[in-house]
Order: sequence, then C-alpha cells, then structure tokens
Amino acid sequence: MTEHYSDIGFAKLDLSRTERTGVPETIFCAGKNNEQLLKILQEFHRQNVAVLGTRCSAEQYAFIKDSGLPLSYDPLSRILVLNTAAMPQKLSGTVAVCAAGTADLPVAEEAARVAEFLGISVARYYDVGIAGLHRLLSKIEQIQQADVVIAVAGMEGALPSVTAGLVKAPVIAVPTSVGYGASFQGLAALLAMLNSCAEGVSVVNIDNGFGAAMVARKILKIKDKKDV
Amino acid sequence: MTEHYSDIGFAKLDLSRTERTGVPETIFCAGKNNEQLLKILQEFHRQNVAVLGTRCSAEQYAFIKDSGLPLSYDPLSRILVLNTAAMPQKLSGTVAVCAAGTADLPVAEEAARVAEFLGISVARYYDVGIAGLHRLLSKIEQIQQADVVIAVAGMEGALPSVTAGLVKAPVIAVPTSVGYGASFQGLAALLAMLNSCAEGVSVVNIDNGFGAAMVARKILKIKDKKDV
Amino acid sequence: MTEHYSDIGFAKLDLSRTERTGVPETIFCAGKNNEQLLKILQEFHRQNVAVLGTRCSAEQYAFIKDSGLPLSYDPLSRILVLNTAAMPQKLSGTVAVCAAGTADLPVAEEAARVAEFLGISVARYYDVGIAGLHRLLSKIEQIQQADVVIAVAGMEGALPSVTAGLVKAPVIAVPTSVGYGASFQGLAALLAMLNSCAEGVSVVNIDNGFGAAMVARKILKIKDKKDV
Amino acid sequence: MTEHYSDIGFAKLDLSRTERTGVPETIFCAGKNNEQLLKILQEFHRQNVAVLGTRCSAEQYAFIKDSGLPLSYDPLSRILVLNTAAMPQKLSGTVAVCAAGTADLPVAEEAARVAEFLGISVARYYDVGIAGLHRLLSKIEQIQQADVVIAVAGMEGALPSVTAGLVKAPVIAVPTSVGYGASFQGLAALLAMLNSCAEGVSVVNIDNGFGAAMVARKILKIKDKKDV
Amino acid sequence: MTEHYSDIGFAKLDLSRTERTGVPETIFCAGKNNEQLLKILQEFHRQNVAVLGTRCSAEQYAFIKDSGLPLSYDPLSRILVLNTAAMPQKLSGTVAVCAAGTADLPVAEEAARVAEFLGISVARYYDVGIAGLHRLLSKIEQIQQADVVIAVAGMEGALPSVTAGLVKAPVIAVPTSVGYGASFQGLAALLAMLNSCAEGVSVVNIDNGFGAAMVARKILKIKDKKDV
Amino acid sequence: MTEHYSDIGFAKLDLSRTERTGVPETIFCAGKNNEQLLKILQEFHRQNVAVLGTRCSAEQYAFIKDSGLPLSYDPLSRILVLNTAAMPQKLSGTVAVCAAGTADLPVAEEAARVAEFLGISVARYYDVGIAGLHRLLSKIEQIQQADVVIAVAGMEGALPSVTAGLVKAPVIAVPTSVGYGASFQGLAALLAMLNSCAEGVSVVNIDNGFGAAMVARKILKIKDKKDV
Amino acid sequence: MTEHYSDIGFAKLDLSRTERTGVPETIFCAGKNNEQLLKILQEFHRQNVAVLGTRCSAEQYAFIKDSGLPLSYDPLSRILVLNTAAMPQKLSGTVAVCAAGTADLPVAEEAARVAEFLGISVARYYDVGIAGLHRLLSKIEQIQQADVVIAVAGMEGALPSVTAGLVKAPVIAVPTSVGYGASFQGLAALLAMLNSCAEGVSVVNIDNGFGAAMVARKILKIKDKKDV
Amino acid sequence: MTEHYSDIGFAKLDLSRTERTGVPETIFCAGKNNEQLLKILQEFHRQNVAVLGTRCSAEQYAFIKDSGLPLSYDPLSRILVLNTAAMPQKLSGTVAVCAAGTADLPVAEEAARVAEFLGISVARYYDVGIAGLHRLLSKIEQIQQADVVIAVAGMEGALPSVTAGLVKAPVIAVPTSVGYGASFQGLAALLAMLNSCAEGVSVVNIDNGFGAAMVARKILKIKDKKDV
Repeated sequence: MTEHYSDIGFAKLDLSRTERTGVPETIFCAGKNNEQLLKILQEFHRQNVAVLGTRCSAEQYAFIKDSGLPLSYDPLSRILVLNTAAMPQKLSGTVAVCAAGTADLPVAEEAARVAEFLGISVARYYDVGIAGLHRLLSKIEQIQQADVVIAVAGMEGALPSVTAGLVKAPVIAVPTSVGYGASFQGLAALLAMLNSCAEGVSVVNIDNGFGAAMVARKILKIKDKKDV
Repeated sequence: MTEHYSDIGFAKLDLSRTERTGVPETIFCAGKNNEQLLKILQEFHRQNVAVLGTRCSAEQYAFIKDSGLPLSYDPLSRILVLNTAAMPQKLSGTVAVCAAGTADLPVAEEAARVAEFLGISVARYYDVGIAGLHRLLSKIEQIQQADVVIAVAGMEGALPSVTAGLVKAPVIAVPTSVGYGASFQGLAALLAMLNSCAEGVSVVNIDNGFGAAMVARKILKIKDKKDV
Repeated sequence: MTEHYSDIGFAKLDLSRTERTGVPETIFCAGKNNEQLLKILQEFHRQNVAVLGTRCSAEQYAFIKDSGLPLSYDPLSRILVLNTAAMPQKLSGTVAVCAAGTADLPVAEEAARVAEFLGISVARYYDVGIAGLHRLLSKIEQIQQADVVIAVAGMEGALPSVTAGLVKAPVIAVPTSVGYGASFQGLAALLAMLNSCAEGVSVVNIDNGFGAAMVARKILKIKDKKDV
Repeated sequence: MTEHYSDIGFAKLDLSRTERTGVPETIFCAGKNNEQLLKILQEFHRQNVAVLGTRCSAEQYAFIKDSGLPLSYDPLSRILVLNTAAMPQKLSGTVAVCAAGTADLPVAEEAARVAEFLGISVARYYDVGIAGLHRLLSKIEQIQQADVVIAVAGMEGALPSVTAGLVKAPVIAVPTSVGYGASFQGLAALLAMLNSCAEGVSVVNIDNGFGAAMVARKILKIKDKKDV
Repeated sequence: MTEHYSDIGFAKLDLSRTERTGVPETIFCAGKNNEQLLKILQEFHRQNVAVLGTRCSAEQYAFIKDSGLPLSYDPLSRILVLNTAAMPQKLSGTVAVCAAGTADLPVAEEAARVAEFLGISVARYYDVGIAGLHRLLSKIEQIQQADVVIAVAGMEGALPSVTAGLVKAPVIAVPTSVGYGASFQGLAALLAMLNSCAEGVSVVNIDNGFGAAMVARKILKIKDKKDV
Repeated sequence: MTEHYSDIGFAKLDLSRTERTGVPETIFCAGKNNEQLLKILQEFHRQNVAVLGTRCSAEQYAFIKDSGLPLSYDPLSRILVLNTAAMPQKLSGTVAVCAAGTADLPVAEEAARVAEFLGISVARYYDVGIAGLHRLLSKIEQIQQADVVIAVAGMEGALPSVTAGLVKAPVIAVPTSVGYGASFQGLAALLAMLNSCAEGVSVVNIDNGFGAAMVARKILKIKDKKDV
Repeated sequence: MTEHYSDIGFAKLDLSRTERTGVPETIFCAGKNNEQLLKILQEFHRQNVAVLGTRCSAEQYAFIKDSGLPLSYDPLSRILVLNTAAMPQKLSGTVAVCAAGTADLPVAEEAARVAEFLGISVARYYDVGIAGLHRLLSKIEQIQQADVVIAVAGMEGALPSVTAGLVKAPVIAVPTSVGYGASFQGLAALLAMLNSCAEGVSVVNIDNGFGAAMVARKILKIKDKKDV
Repeated sequence: MTEHYSDIGFAKLDLSRTERTGVPETIFCAGKNNEQLLKILQEFHRQNVAVLGTRCSAEQYAFIKDSGLPLSYDPLSRILVLNTAAMPQKLSGTVAVCAAGTADLPVAEEAARVAEFLGISVARYYDVGIAGLHRLLSKIEQIQQADVVIAVAGMEGALPSVTAGLVKAPVIAVPTSVGYGASFQGLAALLAMLNSCAEGVSVVNIDNGFGAAMVARKILKIKDKKDV
C-alpha cells in the first residue's frame, strides 16, 4: 500500500482515505478541544483537502470562525464544512431522507447535508411518522423513485420497517435518541430497526446521520461503476 | 371486606376474585408440579367454580386428563378450561385479535381463547405484519368495528403502533418473544410498544396473551355498566 | 382514506387525527426549539384546532406566552393548552388518578390534566403509596366507583398491582422515574408493573401520564358507543 | 486468628466457621460433581461436623444416598442434611416465611428448612400474594408476632414492601425467578425489592432462600446475646 | 387497623407509622419542591412528631432554615432533623458503620446519623477498604463487638463479603455509586454484594444509607423485645 | 396499491412482494411447526412462486422432504429452497462474503447461499479474522473487486471495521453469536459494529446472514437500474 | 511481513503465529463440528506443529481419539493437546493459579494446564475464597513468590482484589460463570474485577482460563528477554 | 504482617503499600472535596511520601495549588503529582502507549504520565486507529520493541485486538468512553476488548489509564527481579 498521512503530533490526518475507501476523511468534532480542532482544520487546509466536521458545537464554531479558514456551518445539524479544495464531484442517483418527527430533524439534516457534501442529490420527507400513516403514503410514490432511502426515527423506530415494505431501494435505518423513559436514549429504536421484519434494512449507530450518508455514498458509487 | 378463600395448604384459592375484580381466578400452570395442579383443579371443582389454566404443558395435560374432571385443552395456546360451573356470561362488544406473523399464533390464540372463555366475541386477523402493509390495510375497516384491539407482534413490534394510528379503539399491545439475536427474547418488541408514537397503546408482559384478554374484559365491562 | 394534513415544511400537522383515532393531535414540546413550537401553534390556531402540548418547559412557555395565542399553562405538569376551538366535549364516565408519593405528582397531574382536556371527569387520590396501606384502603371505596384507574408510582411500582386486586376497573399503570440507584430511572417500576400478578393491568412508558390519559379516553369512548 | 480447615486437595473445608461467624459451613451442591460432593460429605462426617447442602439435585442425592452417611433429603427445596453431629441448638425467637405464590414454594421451603436446621422456629404463610390482599391481611396478626419476616416473591415482587409496611420486624426479601418475559429470571422482583418504599427491607440474591435463613439466624443470635 | 394520617392535599402524612412498623416516617426530600417540603415539615411540627429528612439539598435547607421550625442539618450526609418532639428513645445494642473509601463517606454518614437519630449507638470505621486489608484487620476485634454491621462500599463492593466472613453479626451491605466506567453508577457493587459468598449479608439500594439504618433499628428492637 | 396475497387461514402469503420490494418472500422456518411449514410450501408451489426458507432445522426438513415438492436443503446454513418456478434472474455485480472464524461459517453460508438464490455472484473469504491480519491482507485485492462486502464476525466483531477501512464498497456487517461469557450471545460484536470508526458500515441483526444478502440484492439492483 | 498460513478451505491455519506473537495457535473447539476439528488437527499434525485445543467436549474427544493422532485430553478442563512436535520450551518464572471455590476448578485447571503446555511452572491454590479469609492468608507467603498470579472466582468476584492488595506480582483476574440469580452468568464477578480498588489487576473474559494463561506467558517472556 | 497506616479520621493513608504491593498509594481525587484532598496531601507530605493524584479537576487544583506543597499538574490527563520525596526509581523496559483517536488522548496521557511517574520509559503512538490501518502498520516495528503495550480505544475498541495479533508483548487494553449512542459510555469498547480473538490481551476499567500503567509497572518489575 502506498498510503500516506500527515502527522501533527496528537493526530495523524489520513490523506489517502478518499483514494482508498472512496469517502473523504471527516472530523468528529465532539471529542476535541478548540485548539486541536483548529490545528486539524489548518493542516487539512494546508494540504488542500476539503473536509467535513460533524457534531461541531456552537461554541466550537465561535472559536474557529474568525480563523480565516473558508468555513461554513449549520447550527441545526452541527455540520461544519471546510471548503478548501473542490468538493467531491456530483454522483448520479438520489437519496430520500425520511424523518419520523420534528425532533428527529437534527439527525436527518446531518444525513442530508453530509450526503449533499458528498455530491448526492437529496430529497427530504420530514414528519412522516407512522402514527399518521397517510402522511407517508401520500409521499410514497416519490420516495419509490430514490436509489437509496435513509429513514430516521426515534421512539418505537418503526419508520424504516414500514418504508422498506413499500420500496425497492435499500433502506439505511438511523435510530435517534428522541424519546424518554423506556426509549433508553435510542436503544428502543435501535433494537426495533435491527429486528425489522421487512427485508433490505441495515442499521447505523444511534443519531448517526453522518454514517448513513457515508453508506449511501458507497452504495451510489456502485451505480457509477456500472461499466466495470 | 367480606373476602374468602379456600386454604389447601400450599395454596389459598381466591374464591371472591370475580366479585371483587370482575375477572375469575386463573391458574398459571407453568410453575406448578402435576400433583399441585391436580389438587387445585379438584378443589375448584369441589367449590363449583369455572376456572382457566394458562401455559399448561402437554405433559401436564396428559397427567390430569383422566382425572374425571370436566376439562378441555388446546395444545397451540396451551389453554386449559375446567368447565365445572356455568362459564362467565356473554359480554356485549367485540375484540379484534391481530397477529403479525405465524410464529405469534400461540400468544394470539392464548389471548383469543381466554377472551372467549370470558364471554367476549373475538375476531381474528392473523399474519398482518407491517412488512406487507396491504394485508393489514385490506382488513382495517373490519378491525375498526372492534371495541378493543389486541395487537400481537414479536421482532420489531410495530404492529400495535401502526394499528393504533388507524383505529378509534384502545390497543392492547402484546410483545412476543418471537425473533432472535437483538430481539433479546422479546425485549425489542416490548420497548418498541412502550415507546409507541401513536396514542391509545398500553402494553402487557412479553407473551402475555392471557393478560391482554383480562384487560379487554375489564374494559368491555364498562360498556355494560353504561347505565350507572 | 380521505386523510389530510397541513404541511409547514419541517412538520406535517395531522388534521384528521381526531376523526381517525378519536383523540386530538398533541405536541410533544420537549424535542422542539422555540421557533418550531411557535410556528406549529400558530398553524393549529389558523386551522382552528384545539391542541395540547406536553412537556412544555418554563423556558418554552416564556417564549410563546406573549404571542397573542389563547394559551394556558401549568408549571407542575408542564401541560400547555391552545384553546383555539371548542374543547372536546364531555365524556360520561370517570377516571381515578392515584399516585404513590408526592414526587410522582408531576406525572399524575399530567395524566389528570390531559384527561380533563379530553373531557373526562377526574378524581385524584394522591400519596396513597403502599408503605402505609391504610391510606389507600381508606379511599378504596371511592376508587372502586371509577370506570378507569390510572395508577402512578415510582420506586418499586407496586401501587397498580395492589389496586388492581381491589377494583373491577381496568388499571393503566404509569411507572415514574422517581427513585435513585437501582430504580434505574424508572426501569424497576416499569418491570414491576409489566409483571403484575393482578389481572387487568396494562402499562405505558415511564413518566407518560399523557399516554395513560389517552388510553383512558379511548376506553371511555366505548361506554358512549354503547348503543352501537 | 487461630483458624483451621481441612485440606482435601480440591477443597479446603472451613472447620472454624461456626466459631468465627456463628453459622455452620454449607455445601453449595450445584457446582460440584458427584465424586467431589461425596468426598466433602465424608470428610465432614470424619470431622464430626453437621453440615447442610443446598441445591442438591435428585441425581446427586441418588448417587450419595447409599454411601452409609447419615443423610436426609427434601426434593422440593433440594436441601440435604448430614446429621453427623448434634444439630445447632435451638434459638429463641421465630421467623415467619411468607410466599406470594405456589411457584415460589421451592425457594420458600429452602429458607424454612435451612432456618429449622439452624435451630429456628418457623411459621409458614404461603400463597399470600398481593393480587388477593385479603389472604395476607387475614394472617397479618400472626405474622406480626414473628421476630423476623422472610418474604419470598417472584413476578412484580411487591410482597416484601406491602408486608414491611404492616409489621415491626425486619423483612428479608427474597426475589424468585418465577415469572416470564419481562421478569428477566427474577430481575424485576429483585429491583422492586431493592427500591421498596417501606422501611426495614433488605434483600438477598434471586432464589436465595438459604441466604435469607442465614441472615435470620445472625439476627436472632442478637436476641440471645441480650445480656452482653 | 386503627390507622390515621394527616391529609394536606398533595400528601398524606402517616402518623401511625411508628406504632405500626416501629420506625418513624421520613421525608425523602429529593423529589419535593421547596414549598411542599416546608408544608410537610410544618404539619409534622403541628402534629408534634419528630421527623427525619433525607437527601435534603443545601438549596432546600437554605429555603426552610429561617422558617422558625426547630431544624438541624448536616451538609455531608444531607440529613435534616425536625426536633419537634422527643427523639426516639435510646436502644440497647450498637451498630458498626464501616466504609471502604473516603468517597463513600456521604452514604456512610447518612447511615450513621439516621441510626443515631433512631437512638442507636454507632461506631464508625472509615477507609477500611480491602486494597489495604491490614486497615480492616487492625479494627476487626472492635467491629466484632457490634450487634449489627453496616458495610458501605462502591467500586468492586467487596467490603461486606470480607467483613461477613469475620464477624458473627448480620451485615447490611450498602453499595455506593462511587466509581466510574464499568461501575455503572453502583451496579457493580450492588451485584457483588448480592452474590456474596459469605453468609449473613443482605443488601439495600445503591447509596441507601438511610435504609440500612432503618433495617438496623428493626433488628435491634428484637434485642429489647427479648422478654416476650 | 394493487397488492394481493393468498390467505390460508393462519397465514397470508405475500404474492406481490417481489414486484413491490424487489425481493421475494421468504419463510422464517424457526417459528413454525411442521404442518404449518408444509402447508405454506404447498401453497407457494400451487401459486408457482419460488421461495426460500431460512433456519430450517434438520427435523423440519426430514418431515417435508418426502412431500413431492421440488426442494433442496443445506444442513450447514439451514437454507431450504423451493425450486417451483424460475429462480430470480442473474444480477450483474458481485458480493464478497468474508468470515472471521470457522464457527461463523453457518451464518456466512446463510448469507452466501441466499445471495446466490437471489442471482448474485458470490466470492467467499473464510477464516480471515484479525488475530492473523496477514490472512485478510493476502486477500484484500480480490475483496476490493467486489461491489458489496458482507463481513461476518463474532467475539469482538472487528472484521467489518478493519475491512471497511481498506475497500471502496459498502460493508454490510453481520455480528454472530459466536463466543462466550461477555460476548453475551453476540451483543459485543453487534455493539462493536454499530460503533465502527470506519465509514461505510451498516449492520443487520445478530446471526442474520439472510438479511445481509437481502440488503446486498437491493444495493446491486441499483447497478442494473443504471439507465433510469 | 513474511507471514504464511495453511489454507484448508473452511479454515486458514496460522503457521507463523508463534514467531509473530510468541504464543502458538490454539483451536477453540466449541464452535466446530467433529469433521472440521479432525481436519484441522490432521493438518497441524502434517505441518508438525504442536497445538492446543480448548473447550473440547467429551463427545468431540470420543470422535477423534481413535484417529491415530498423538492426542491427550483432560475432561475437567476440557483441554486437548496434539503432541505432534516438541512442546514449547520451559520458561523461567512461575505462575500461581488461585481459585475461590470448588466450582471454579474447570476454569482454574484450564488456566493451569494451558500454562503448563506453554512451558510455565504452575502452583495451584484452590478453595481460597474470601468467606474464610484464613485459607488465603495461610498460603499468602507462597503466593507472594510467584511472578504472575491468576485469580479465578465467580459469584462476587472479590478474590483478585483481595489478592492484589497483598502481592507485588501482576494479577490476571478470571471471572467465572459460577453462581446464580444476580450473578448473571458471571457478569457480577466480571464487573467487580474491572472495578477493583487494588492496583495491578487486569481482566480477561468470563471463564477464559485459557486467555489468562496466554497473558501470563507473554508477561513471563519479558523476564527471559531481560538481556535485550 | 508489619503493616502501618496514618489515620487522619476520615481516611487511613496506607504507608506500606509500596513495600507490600510494589506500587505507591494513589489518590482518586474525583470523589473527594477540596478540604479532604488538601488534608490528605498534607499528611503524605508530612510523612515524606511521593504520591500521585488521578482525576484531579481544574477546580480542585485551583484550590490546592497555593498551599505551598510541591505540586505539579497536567490539565489534559488531570494527573497531580506531589513530589515530596524521591520519585520511584527508573525501571528497565519500555511501554508503548497506543491511542486510536484524538479524543482518546486524555486517557492515553493518564496512562503515559502515571507510567512515567512510576519510573517507566514511555513511547507514545497516537491516532493509530484501525480505520486507516496504514498508520498503525507504519509504526508497528517500533511498537514491537516495547516490553508492554497499552492500547487505548473507544467506539468499537478494535485497536488492542489488531495490535495483539502483531506483537509479542502483553497488551493491556483500555476502553474509553469516547463515542455516542450504542457505545453506551464505553461499554461497546469494553466488551469488544474482553472478547478479543487475539491472545495476550487483558483489560482494565473504562477510561482507566491509571490502572493500565499500574499493571504495566507490576509486569516490568518481573524483568528486574530476573536474578531471583
């Protein structure tokens, strides 16, 4: 392997990740202090690499926003983008991001915005939870057009199962920590999705909208690789 | 309170339960040995009380069936009935028992047969799980006629939530231990049902078809108590 | 289905829920930011729909109270009411709300106030926990008059089981997160209630007073539907 | 410390335990094979020490019963007694063993028989579970005479809490694995007992009737030590 | 039963608890707001009943301390005492309170101070955790003099087991939430104590020093009841 | 929706599933008795539908094999195939099935054989667990050719994470129940896979080789849908 | 890396493991069927590699014992040895294997026999559980001579903590599944050991005597590497 | 034993721990209040003992830093050192501290700095997580030189397993609470490490870098004890 990385002491920035895995490196901001985050961004900027930050708090963004780096930030999804280099090129294919309730929007938007950063066309279907099934059914023909469905839900987590029974596309299920009591911070939704009786559902971590978008991109790349 | 019971040493048979709570005493057969079970049945017979046994194994029934007691037994639901006295009188109102999959039938039948023992008219809707939503939707107008819905499901346990969004009746959710891996013997379905985003869902223990029927009877009694 | 909803972008307000399920839509305020909450209330007001908000924090109420909307708010139960249209009409039948201890009152009051919003007569029996059984027994004849009992308890969660053994009405058990250590935020009470040895107990989520009231309303509707 | 033990290779038999802790050594038979069990019994017999075996299976007893050792065995509680030397002398004071249901009897009998082996007078109150509270209340004056109460229950585990609110004696709570589904092999009862809102309850392991009797003996010894 | 209580609306103060169970009523302050707490104290004062408050926060005490009620407060154990009437009379017998580490002191002091309030002589043995066994062994002869041992420990929770193997007295084990990671807020210590291989150990809830003292009092009362 | 199904009483066979979701209906044999299984197979045969059975025990197969139905069976993966109609047509694209250890083979073979039934070309890479990383690395160039990777592992479940860091394809992670002790029947592997630090990993239920193959087919269909 | 392995289809036998990691490959027999096990042994024999099998059931051994391979087997620890080539050479340094109770012996013997296979001198100290501390203390001077201590215990799992406070050597803690109820198959002991308040304790999986011996060997190799 | 300690009332400072166990006493600062911490430090200073504090918060350090004691403090690892007496002498042998991600650095630095305090030479390898395996492989020859490896990782916790398959040294695995959702505060990483399929891995508590360093020191002492 002819791999390489940039070593800045407390971190080794993986510069060959896109070449190796097809998706760019991403910074998980939540576990880093302000100084570490800034240094990492500066190094990626120096290396001319476009990079995405997830779970960037408002406090973190306040610290770095005047650094002169070409940054953009969305407070709902807490997504940070360093627009250093050209963004990933556009992929063919579309992703439908479905969310059960309003409280699931931060996670759904994380998925949608990361997907867009990765060059994917995204269609959003929000507040289509199963307590009022007609809301989902009224949109189902549109959703059936998507190549990949990302279904985001907390509480009982039934949206991915119901959706997967109605579409041909693979469904990436994202449990959220929305709920209280016996939701156990998303455990109920996670278990429900893992036990889906509908085929074609696979699951990512609780609140991991980012991860769902990454899986979607790896799937859509297959489409473009079609002539191989 | 002018309560009374029959004391047979290892057990105190509650003879005033119907008068006090509106539902007859029931024998949970699973934790009793053959001799204990027989003695309890004989005492109830002597007291001229109709009684229901749940979770009666085929082995237990083999031991007691030639005892001369007026017994009937269903191997699928493992329900035992001692027809000693008059069965509870017929209640007005109906219960719809819905089951998600074939493997849920033992629990669904436990609910249905206990309800019938308690004088309730039961309509069965089996194999209406949400992976093929059209099966449920094709029956939904009939289900909407019921006064109470008992919804039985294992795996991701979404049937009660989807149903509750479509009917006016209260939905008694029964999680089952059907599934494997991350179903954790019904925990996934139980948590999903407790976190239902649809209103009007309450939950009983895993595999507790009996309990759901008991709740249904207590609910339907309200209907008959209408003139109070 | 001739369903309809109001689409305000981030949310789809279910306008046919009462017609479809017999209970009005409710706003779970906890997961929404101030702006979202206000927009939803304004849209319901525009649609002339009375609506209930649960888990509305004092901060949220402070933000919306000067909006000119016809709101009322109770800080103990955190219940918000938008009195736009006529409230649901009165139901016949009564609900007894029993609470084990003083710390359970926010949840008990959530149940009681939601029930009242739904047109139900409520009788409150507070601080009747089983450590001093005479307190419950001194009220039991009154409780036996109710059509439905909502029993709220934290810690060991025994109140619904003890009560269900003494009344003919169905008992809706509400575990609360009151306790510490091995209560595991209400898990102990939840499990105790699911395993009740008394018949006629069904359970809703931890701290879900709202859900219990919704179940109670669906049950009481049966009573009024008596002539069918 | 002038402690001593008998070393038989795979085990070190604690011969000074009674002197040191006031209770005799006991053999937990469940984890031992037939040969090990026999050798241990023979050594205790050789040392002229009376000893108790718990969880002795019918198979184990069949293997050792013809060994010529002075043994007695109860199949319900699975208690084995080696009557080698004089049994512990009689203690003043009594223990009430209360059990919620018939299925709890093996554990309750383990407690009762171990207590009797330890020289304690035992009064049994069986099938006094809280679903029919009048059964417990009809016996409560007798139970109030006991110096120590052992309360045995599975499922929702409420018996110790209800009892402790009615008696002056300390209550030793024994959760049992009786139940199914969300009882999680006794976890529900265990948590309920640990969270008892009634004062004076302490808890031993699930199904540990033996342990409860040991605690009872250590408590009753205080009574006899009165003159110190 | 000739029970009575004082009904102040949101609470029913149990005035016959001492007579019925031998221990006075106690206020669990943690779940109550300032106004509720003050009203309860005033009512007990009016009824001339001495009462104990547990888990009284510094904020709560600041609110009530200028109320004119005869209060005393200890910030480490968070114990509040309303000295209205004569305190419970002195019991014969002593309790040894052993604590594994310094971080366990708030719980140990809760046990010790509640016991003292209940009229019990307390001997404290602090920082005797098993990592330096000689500290416990240097005190063991004194501990062996106690009638009851309360052993308080977090982390691996071994102190009660080691102590129970060395003393004749019953050991009340109190797991604490001291620790981190896989201590899971005291679960590790709780499970260890429930599985003690030493006889004579019973367990109360995590951090429940109060409960341990209540059990101790009920045990010591047996000693005084000796002439019965 | 113009959905249809075949109603055989205890089951409703979904005949439009392929048309609706792109994957055929499958029979989960584990929860069905012999008679139910045979009737379902006969009905599918009558309807001329090719169908797959998973978790078919040797006992079940023994019961049905002489029924005259065109069946084939593999005892390692417990896959049953009813070859009634033409099998699904060949898809372009390939799936690499990687398994960590020999004990994971039943699950890996379930994935591989289901994929083959669904018309997918499968390449198997077995015993490539990370304890001897050179085994995986020696095959990695071949694995990189696959369009989708299914990675099967029990115990610590690291194989999908390590693989996902080395390939461009999406990785479907299948935790297995292989292991003992703190593997908790596959929970350890499941959690590890959900927390993968490598991008592009999504997860199905423990031991759910079947589900992974279904997801793979839904993904590969995108490739063929390329011209849309 | 110049790694190599032997590929026999369903398995890749790691032939360079000793060279790479200092410990030989081992066969975990539990997850393999008879034919797989035999083929693996035959291949290792053909390659002239000494190999160890763990968790080999009596049934498995019965199948392979007449294969002509040079095998030895111990039924208590279920250890299988293929004595093909020279066994690993003797290491300097000794390991003390301490076990709390008789029921822990299968795990303790697995540790001891694997260690001996690896060329380590082993001293066994069995039945030294903390309920009778004098048994451990009577041996502690001998245990202090060991270079590494392996401490095996179930139930409350306190032995490693107590031991680590008394010796200078690193203590490898092995929780066992011995116990019942709240031991949760060894979880209680596992958590206790992870939370040890004594320094120098590290933990392996429940019942993993094999793993402890492997760690011990890697530690002792340091001693021999002294001159580096 | 000629053990001794210093008794300062609320604590008993173990002055013979180094002599007895080979590692000095350490103060776990997290559970102590400011006054307790200062008193303990002053007493150790008076006794002329060098001592280490772990989990010392910035607030705690602010309180004690002007006390005149010879203190040093590192805010990242929260390690406090009281340099009263001579530090432990240098050990031969080296420890490699490997950390998977930047967010694991506080734990890794706790391990590294404690090891250095204990006289060990430490080599740090940070940000070598398995998502970019080339980063670990580029350093593996250096890591192979170490006598002991400490591998620190959160999320899926695979680093210790991958590393242990590549080195001869024992690997002490430290799970961290880094992650979210189904990491359950480090449980996922903990379970993964306990189930490692690679030999030579033992595990300490979540986030317990201190404990890993203590084990490392006890291991390295063996090297110096070589001539015994």
